[in-house]
Amino acid sequence: MTAVNRRIVLDHRPDGIPGAQHFRRDDQPLPELADGQFLVRNHYLSIDPAQRGWISAGPGYTEPVAPGAVMRSLAVGVVTATRNAKYAVGDHLYGWFGWQDFCAATEAQVIARVDTGQGSASAGAGLYGICGVTAWLALTELGRPRAGETVLVSTAAGAVGSVVGQLARRLGCRVVGLTGSDEKVRQCLAEFGYHAALNYRSGLDTAALRTLCPQGVDIFFDNTAGEIADAVWPHLNLRGRIIQCGTAAVGSWDPLPVAPRRERAVLTKRLRHEGFIIFDHLERFPAVIAQLSRWQREGTLVFHEDIVTGLDAAPDALTSIFRGENRGKKMVRISNGTRAL
Amino acid sequence: MTAVNRRIVLDHRPDGIPGAQHFRRDDQPLPELADGQFLVRNHYLSIDPAQRGWISAGPGYTEPVAPGAVMRSLAVGVVTATRNAKYAVGDHLYGWFGWQDFCAATEAQVIARVDTGQGSASAGAGLYGICGVTAWLALTELGRPRAGETVLVSTAAGAVGSVVGQLARRLGCRVVGLTGSDEKVRQCLAEFGYHAALNYRSGLDTAALRTLCPQGVDIFFDNTAGEIADAVWPHLNLRGRIIQCGTAAVGSWDPLPVAPRRERAVLTKRLRHEGFIIFDHLERFPAVIAQLSRWQREGTLVFHEDIVTGLDAAPDALTSIFRGENRGKKMVRISNGTRAL
Repeated sequence: MTAVNRRIVLDHRPDGIPGAQHFRRDDQPLPELADGQFLVRNHYLSIDPAQRGWISAGPGYTEPVAPGAVMRSLAVGVVTATRNAKYAVGDHLYGWFGWQDFCAATEAQVIARVDTGQGSASAGAGLYGICGVTAWLALTELGRPRAGETVLVSTAAGAVGSVVGQLARRLGCRVVGLTGSDEKVRQCLAEFGYHAALNYRSGLDTAALRTLCPQGVDIFFDNTAGEIADAVWPHLNLRGRIIQCGTAAVGSWDPLPVAPRRERAVLTKRLRHEGFIIFDHLERFPAVIAQLSRWQREGTLVFHEDIVTGLDAAPDALTSIFRGENRGKKMVRISNGTRAL
Repeated sequence: MTAVNRRIVLDHRPDGIPGAQHFRRDDQPLPELADGQFLVRNHYLSIDPAQRGWISAGPGYTEPVAPGAVMRSLAVGVVTATRNAKYAVGDHLYGWFGWQDFCAATEAQVIARVDTGQGSASAGAGLYGICGVTAWLALTELGRPRAGETVLVSTAAGAVGSVVGQLARRLGCRVVGLTGSDEKVRQCLAEFGYHAALNYRSGLDTAALRTLCPQGVDIFFDNTAGEIADAVWPHLNLRGRIIQCGTAAVGSWDPLPVAPRRERAVLTKRLRHEGFIIFDHLERFPAVIAQLSRWQREGTLVFHEDIVTGLDAAPDALTSIFRGENRGKKMVRISNGTRAL
């Protein structure tokens, strides 16, 4: 075991998209375990668009990470020492372990146990982490899709969107994707179950959306907000549902940007616009993971991971997802002297 | 029976708030009854803010009234001739009978039978019409209030808002009203069950809203949209519900006005913003009317009617509610040669 815990801490808050300059290394000795704690050695860091919100002082759903503190991150790791009867050495866990080699964790930091029998432990931070579980719960509980309805997904080829596409198709919906490159459009059509897809950079006007969604949009699974959302809203059908799962296309919320006023559409079309945060639903993880795992084993659910190596790659990995460069769920494999799980 | 049917038709569409100049009289002979029809003699016309939407070419939830057609209106009337076994002469009905003396109606135009045993038939177009039923259903089904929550109502002293205030208090909520005059503020506090109320014209800033809603807002019953809504949204609590029941404060929706972008608030606070149109819920009228009627008989539910007389008063009555001049549910009593019911 190394005697040093490499850590990446927040240096200062970004104004918009975070970059490497907002973080710095701050290595420390290995933490001592208090009673009830256990030591997790991180193997995969989950890189998520939500991390931008976690370091922003603007409106968020959690206390922002303080400058000088370890960057908040979900991760998959293995228990290497324990003072907690519930977690044994060798257990693989998914939880809040941060951008560091080792985390002295408490029970409250654990989201799920990771079953390594089904392949790489990285899936615990991917399909069986917040991405897959978000896709299923947000789509079904907020969207309540019915067969034959049209589901439109922004960031359609992303780590969440790619699963939404496949699940909505499985539920009998017509599934339409918006994504940021022609390559991703092809991927949406070939791999992720979309009936139609468009590179929004090629123009997202009324005619394009009418062609994509001739029956209008019943469920808008929105990961972007911004101009993409503004283009989609006029195409919502009566009793449309807008699932707000992210706001990746808006660079800054301070000051609050403006948008077309929505109240008349909400009223006259009886829309329902709701926000979804996966961390409200932690108790649902085991059942949803079991279902997703069955589908993946059947070969009817694909999921891409885009893994870079080395703790120091984490800040740029985060930036890269806002540049739309990732090709699947972005993760960082930590090469901390152990073999990859 | 008069041989002439006085009618007020739409002359041309208004750009914003409708006025007398947008309507004209177009009297016609009494209509002949086809098989299945029955003749309704109107007694009370219901004047509703929604009528602005019904004559607008902008986005709405129904086909707009065509120029030259009788102005669409809910009304209470009595059957004076019938070729329909379901409706007998003397029956009192609430339905789509228009701005006219007589309507040759079909079953589809009837919303509810009016029980004249409980007082004036005008209540059939008031508390027991769309106002009272909207207040109950929108508050309970979209708002799902829990005791102790804060409910904020815009147009708090209006025909819908005044009922929402009383019902929310009955359900154990803290109820806060926004209204347009000091007199209405007093009425909110003295009669409509509000714990606190504010004349929004006196300033609706953050400090004022914090004082009114020290625990924030759990349910925003919004009848106005516009600047009032923009002031309220930042005070919404986690899992707040916004019931969009009207958009009275926005003069025109073409072109679409702008507003502060809502997606980040919807996401991070897990808000639910939904539209409510009473005409989706016609099957609920009998049960809700029975409940409201029990409370009114007990003396625990008050409702004000603001009645003007004469068919020709209808256009200005409609304008007056957008000036905020009504003192309760606006109606027009038609003096068409009969005694008032």
